[in-house]
Amino acid sequence: MTSTTHESASFVQWRTRQQEAVEQALSHWVPESLPAGLGQAMRYAVLDGGKRLRPLLVLATSEALQGDTGAAMRAACSVELIHAYSLVHDDMPCMDNDVLRRGKPTTHVKFGEAQALLAGDALQALAFELLVPDDASLEPAMSVALCRLLALSAGGDGMAGGQSVDLASVGRTLDLTELEAMHRRKTGALLQASVVMGAVAGRASAATLRALETYGASLGLAFQVVDDILDVVADVAALGKTVGKDAASDKPTFVSLMGLEQAQRYADRALDRAHEALEQTGLADTHNLHALADWVGRRDR
Amino acid sequence: MTSTTHESASFVQWRTRQQEAVEQALSHWVPESLPAGLGQAMRYAVLDGGKRLRPLLVLATSEALQGDTGAAMRAACSVELIHAYSLVHDDMPCMDNDVLRRGKPTTHVKFGEAQALLAGDALQALAFELLVPDDASLEPAMSVALCRLLALSAGGDGMAGGQSVDLASVGRTLDLTELEAMHRRKTGALLQASVVMGAVAGRASAATLRALETYGASLGLAFQVVDDILDVVADVAALGKTVGKDAASDKPTFVSLMGLEQAQRYADRALDRAHEALEQTGLADTHNLHALADWVGRRDR
Repeated sequence: MTSTTHESASFVQWRTRQQEAVEQALSHWVPESLPAGLGQAMRYAVLDGGKRLRPLLVLATSEALQGDTGAAMRAACSVELIHAYSLVHDDMPCMDNDVLRRGKPTTHVKFGEAQALLAGDALQALAFELLVPDDASLEPAMSVALCRLLALSAGGDGMAGGQSVDLASVGRTLDLTELEAMHRRKTGALLQASVVMGAVAGRASAATLRALETYGASLGLAFQVVDDILDVVADVAALGKTVGKDAASDKPTFVSLMGLEQAQRYADRALDRAHEALEQTGLADTHNLHALADWVGRRDR
Repeated sequence: MTSTTHESASFVQWRTRQQEAVEQALSHWVPESLPAGLGQAMRYAVLDGGKRLRPLLVLATSEALQGDTGAAMRAACSVELIHAYSLVHDDMPCMDNDVLRRGKPTTHVKFGEAQALLAGDALQALAFELLVPDDASLEPAMSVALCRLLALSAGGDGMAGGQSVDLASVGRTLDLTELEAMHRRKTGALLQASVVMGAVAGRASAATLRALETYGASLGLAFQVVDDILDVVADVAALGKTVGKDAASDKPTFVSLMGLEQAQRYADRALDRAHEALEQTGLADTHNLHALADWVGRRDR
């Protein structure tokens, strides 16, 4: 995502610093030395790419609560590993059959389908491994809460379930409720979990947690609507992936359902709700969380 | 596996009762009502099939230690879900391309490749979810220990890594050390983890745990050697899967490396070590653990 006119210098600095810290942590935790080149495939899928939006949501939320930075970084990397594995599997020929991701050949193009399948599987296991260290760096009750949030958001009633609905929706017309329900699972669940995992790392009170859940859900919806808009208007250079695929494959999108202008207004309303929810958290410094919502909503337009 | 002449009536009764209990628990935990038929694909991959060897290892180990039955059943089902997901992915066209499993069409044949991929992914997430209940039925420290064992045995340095080595070994000659290392990851890690997770559920002492680790590793090795032997000698009716595939696809096996007779002696020695390790556990009643080793080692011959 490119920067927008509304971004503060402090947010851009914070984001850049945290993106580097996440990259370093991921590089530390995704091992190179696994058998038969599996580590290389995993690292290819994870490192040197992406905006790290999910980790940034974890870290910003935890920081707003003065949470434990070690716990927050583990949680941040675990959601990114889930995201990365889902992209590897999603790009495979039996799914979206994408050959380009972030301007590079997709993992199965580079390493073969079987190795890509295994790399995705191993990345999911590693995501959970990060949350259960054996060095007492995470309190067991916090580990359990984080694992549970990750499992629920990634699983059959979360991301994987949303992808299944997505598959089944090709060539069908979904109404707004169905489309939202699909995206709430497919991308919304893990984005919301990122915020809530940050809240758990920061030991948020029940009331703060509820407000942050609303923030995460609204941001997740805005993310998807903007994604559909970008799919239509962006060019290959800006996105680094094959563009217009959803329309080409006859998948229902917010733009196909309500038109471009209406979709943009819809995204803006979701963003407004995200900002409003932050006001209900009772937290003193939500600057980076506000800025992340704007970053999601105003990228490349 | 069919019964052998050495089995006690009490073991057969115990095994049957536990297989039914595992089936019931899996049916309870793998939800039918997921979006777009994903639940049906997951249940198809998990229910009504298999010997449930891994769950039986968890349960027998925990019982020998008078462990908590609720924790043990969660652990038992979690290892079976990992096993089931690995079979779904392993059967896919980009991996082994198997169309038959336990006498039924494989999951991708029945539900399509994309849905099978997602069902496997969701089963892995569900395996971890089972270990982190939100109802205080598992002590957090035990949850964490179980999650860690599961993640390590399933991941890049465990099962997924072993499968990657397996892929890379086609058409190559492995020596005995390499072949053992591959299988220690590919099948041994999860079998051993089943035993160790049972030990954790049963709060085993460090010395007992070490002996049980040796039992699990030896049983895991025996399992794989016998598998290679059966691949050569069994017929379709007994195994319910395509036979002779490993030899046909030029994968190195214990039989191809050392011949049938020598491989059988090798399996027997591994079994002997498993039995000996049980004598070192200091546990009063290891009858079912001994019987499980024999069941693994003497199936169908």
